Amino acid sequence: MKSSALYGGIEGGGTKFVCAIGTGPDDIRAETRIPSTTPGETLGHVIQFFKDEEKKHGNLSALGIASFGPIDLNPDSKTYGQILPTTKPDWSGADLLGTLRNAFDIPIGIDNDVNGAALGEHLWGAAQGLHTFLYLTIGTGIGGGAFTEGKLLHGLVHPEMGHIPIPHDIKTDPFEGMCVFHKDCFEGLACGPAMEQRWAQRAETLPEDHPAWDLEAAYIAHALTSYIYILSPQRIIIGGGVGSNTHLLKAVREKTRALVNGYLSSKAISDEIDSFIVTPALGNRSGVLGAIALGKDAREKK
Amino acid sequence: MKSSALYGGIEGGGTKFVCAIGTGPDDIRAETRIPSTTPGETLGHVIQFFKDEEKKHGNLSALGIASFGPIDLNPDSKTYGQILPTTKPDWSGADLLGTLRNAFDIPIGIDNDVNGAALGEHLWGAAQGLHTFLYLTIGTGIGGGAFTEGKLLHGLVHPEMGHIPIPHDIKTDPFEGMCVFHKDCFEGLACGPAMEQRWAQRAETLPEDHPAWDLEAAYIAHALTSYIYILSPQRIIIGGGVGSNTHLLKAVREKTRALVNGYLSSKAISDEIDSFIVTPALGNRSGVLGAIALGKDAREKK
Repeated sequence: MKSSALYGGIEGGGTKFVCAIGTGPDDIRAETRIPSTTPGETLGHVIQFFKDEEKKHGNLSALGIASFGPIDLNPDSKTYGQILPTTKPDWSGADLLGTLRNAFDIPIGIDNDVNGAALGEHLWGAAQGLHTFLYLTIGTGIGGGAFTEGKLLHGLVHPEMGHIPIPHDIKTDPFEGMCVFHKDCFEGLACGPAMEQRWAQRAETLPEDHPAWDLEAAYIAHALTSYIYILSPQRIIIGGGVGSNTHLLKAVREKTRALVNGYLSSKAISDEIDSFIVTPALGNRSGVLGAIALGKDAREKK
Repeated sequence: MKSSALYGGIEGGGTKFVCAIGTGPDDIRAETRIPSTTPGETLGHVIQFFKDEEKKHGNLSALGIASFGPIDLNPDSKTYGQILPTTKPDWSGADLLGTLRNAFDIPIGIDNDVNGAALGEHLWGAAQGLHTFLYLTIGTGIGGGAFTEGKLLHGLVHPEMGHIPIPHDIKTDPFEGMCVFHKDCFEGLACGPAMEQRWAQRAETLPEDHPAWDLEAAYIAHALTSYIYILSPQRIIIGGGVGSNTHLLKAVREKTRALVNGYLSSKAISDEIDSFIVTPALGNRSGVLGAIALGKDAREKK
C-alpha cells in the first residue's frame, strides 16, 4: 500500500544543501539546491523552501536531515543534532536539528549522510530485505554507513569506515598518503584527491587501462576484506565519484574474492560476488532520498 | 531478583568440552571437563553429565552451547547447529544442536565461542549496560564477537575478526605470517603460535622487556583501530592466553590512542582508554558462563 504521507528531506553537503519533498523515490514533488554559505543563511533558505512547498502540497508529516559532519548523534547529549568541530568555516556548532525544530513542529530525524544513504537503500534500493549490509562512498572522502541485524549502527560515536589502516607497500606505491590524521589510512591512500596527487591528474581523466585503477582496486579490496571479516555484511553497496566506476568495481570484485581466498564458506562471496558488491540502486539521489527515509523513520518511531 | 531457573552450559573446545550447570556466575552447582575425542563419544559424555546432574539438582530450564567452529548459525539452514567443514579430524558435520535436542526437550541456544563469551560479559561482566562492544580473544587463534545496537552480530555468516588485513612492514618484521589462508593477516602475524615461530620461543616465556611485546602491541593496536572505525564500540574486552597479559594491554592502550590520533571526538578513547580497553570480568570462565548465557537467552526468546 502506498503511503500518502508527505516527507521533507535535507541532504546537507559541504558545498550545497539539496532539499526535496515527496513520498518516496517515484514521487518527488519538488526539489531545490541551496549553496552552503553560512549556517544561518543556508538553513533560512531551507526553511523557506519547505514553508513555500507546504502551501502548494500540504503539510509535511516529518522531516529528515542527512548531513555532512561530524554531527552529534547521541540523543541524550545537549548538543544532539549539532555539527561538531569541523574544518568547514562557520559550521562548527551549527545547530541543524534545533533550527529545524524551531521552524517545524513535526518529527525530525537526523543522521550523517552515509547512514541516510544506507537507510534509503534499505527502504527503496539495493538493500531491501537485508538485515546486515554496508553502504560505502568513495569520492572526495571515503565513508560508510552500516546496518547490523536490522538497525543503523552508531555505537560509541559513529563509524569512520574510511579511516581504517590497510596494508601499504611503500616500494610499490611510494605515495605517502594524504590523510591529515593518519597519512596512509584507506581514505589517505584511495580517495579521489589521493589518486589525483599520486598520478598528477584528476581521477576521472585517467584511462581505464591506467595502472592507477589496479592499485585503487587493490586498496578498496583490502578495505572490503576488513569490512567483511568484521561486519559480515550480506551485501556491500559502493557509490561515490570514484567508487561508482564500473571497470573499477569489476576489479574490486575479483581482488576481494581473491583476498578472502575461500576462507568464508559463503556462496555470496565465492559464487555470487556480482550481486554481493553492487552500485547504489538510488544512484546519485541516494543522498536526498536517504534524508526523506530518515524523516519517514522518525515519524514511524514516534 | 535472583532467577531460580537452572541452566546448562557447554563450552565446546578443540581439546576439551567444559560443561556446567547453575543459575549464573555466583552459583555454579556442578562442572566437568570432557576430552574432545570423537563427536559421538564426547557428546555422549556431555549428555550423561547433564542427565546425572539433573537427578541431583532438578531439571534444567534451558541449555546453551558455545563452541569452536565454524558452526552453521543460520536458523533457516538445514544444517543449523552443525559444525561446518573443519580441519579438526572427525568433527566436520558433527551435529551439536541436533544431538542435544534429541536428548533434552528444552530450549537450546547455540553460537560460536566468542559470541557466547560476549553475551556472558554483557549479562554479568565487563559489558553490562552497553549496546555496542567487542569481545576479542588472542591466543592460539584470534577471534572476536560483537554486540551492535543491542544484538549479537551474525550478519551473512559470522564475523572473522582475526583475519583482517593489517599493515605489515616486512623490513621491520621479516616473519611472513602463518595464516594458511592469508599469510600475514592479523591472526597470521599476532596469534600465540606466530609469536612462537617468529621468536623461536613460546610467548609465555618471553620476558616483559623483549621487543616481541612491542611488536605484538603494535599489531593489536592496528587491528583495534579497524574495529573502532568500523564498529564504533563503547568498549573492547580482550582475553585469551596472549591478550590477557597486563603489560601487553598497557602498550596496546597507548598505541591505539596514538593511532586514532584524536580523530574520533570521544573521551572514551582520548581520556578514558583504561576503561575502554579492558580484560574480561569473567576471566577464564567467560567461555562456560557464555554458554550458560546462551541457554538463558534461548529460554527468554521462547
